Amino acid sequence: MLGKAKLLKVYLGESERYKNKPLYQYLVHWLKEKGIGGVTVNRGIEGYGADKVLHTARFLELSSDLPMILEIVDVAEKIDPLIPEICAMVPKGLVFGIDINVYKHGKEQP
Amino acid sequence: MLGKAKLLKVYLGESERYKNKPLYQYLVHWLKEKGIGGVTVNRGIEGYGADKVLHTARFLELSSDLPMILEIVDVAEKIDPLIPEICAMVPKGLVFGIDINVYKHGKEQP
Amino acid sequence: MLGKAKLLKVYLGESERYKNKPLYQYLVHWLKEKGIGGVTVNRGIEGYGADKVLHTARFLELSSDLPMILEIVDVAEKIDPLIPEICAMVPKGLVFGIDINVYKHGKEQP
Repeated sequence: MLGKAKLLKVYLGESERYKNKPLYQYLVHWLKEKGIGGVTVNRGIEGYGADKVLHTARFLELSSDLPMILEIVDVAEKIDPLIPEICAMVPKGLVFGIDINVYKHGKEQP
Repeated sequence: MLGKAKLLKVYLGESERYKNKPLYQYLVHWLKEKGIGGVTVNRGIEGYGADKVLHTARFLELSSDLPMILEIVDVAEKIDPLIPEICAMVPKGLVFGIDINVYKHGKEQP
Repeated sequence: MLGKAKLLKVYLGESERYKNKPLYQYLVHWLKEKGIGGVTVNRGIEGYGADKVLHTARFLELSSDLPMILEIVDVAEKIDPLIPEICAMVPKGLVFGIDINVYKHGKEQP
């Protein structure tokens, strides 16, 4: 997937679940099954989304629902068909795409 | 805010303060008050900026000024008017924008 | 470097080494020597890349090879000549670029 590709970023809550699993773990597994090139997950330390509820690591009692950020990379032809399903799995989150230019992916390189 | 929107990334130091509060916390609160759609904060483990001073979690004595990265998402019409104020609040940091395409934000979806 | 610039993202494994140092530390140092404007490093909590091996912080025994994400910012004229060397140093990773618009970098501002 060298050259033009797509970075899809998905923001969701750490406590969200899907089919008896943490949603972010389910998504990583699901994207791997679909053959998507690469996925990483970061846990934020603070943030809010569409519902304007602040989640933060500063107070112990709120720290179990921190923002999780997935970065999903592949060509648009592989990512775009999955976007409706991803949006349906992330009921309260944020999903957006960015155009990127890939210089290296595993052993592929120019 | 579905469709074309903007991701504003702000990099600052964990130890920077503004009006008696950690700057990153002040910014999250301030952006929420301004009605900005979504904000998340990540703490980096290492980095340097314009002053070329390396901050790293590797040495205990330096670990209290790690890079903090804010990701701010909304339409350009809402973010652009705030950029001069954000730049003024972040005296030593880095602020940049990226064009994005939003597929889902809370209950909004195509 | 105000105005049009480039964000280069590099994904590699925490356990990868280069010249007797962790690769991500070597890269940060090397980019600083080259005069690149700013670099931050984040450690992901889970992810997979081109080889489709899942790395996760969920299981203690696998947690020493988490994904490391470098964000490298400067004008394209300074970043582009370094890309072949960066790709050569990151044998199994992912390297991609994004067009950005810089509003502030240290004391530079519009």
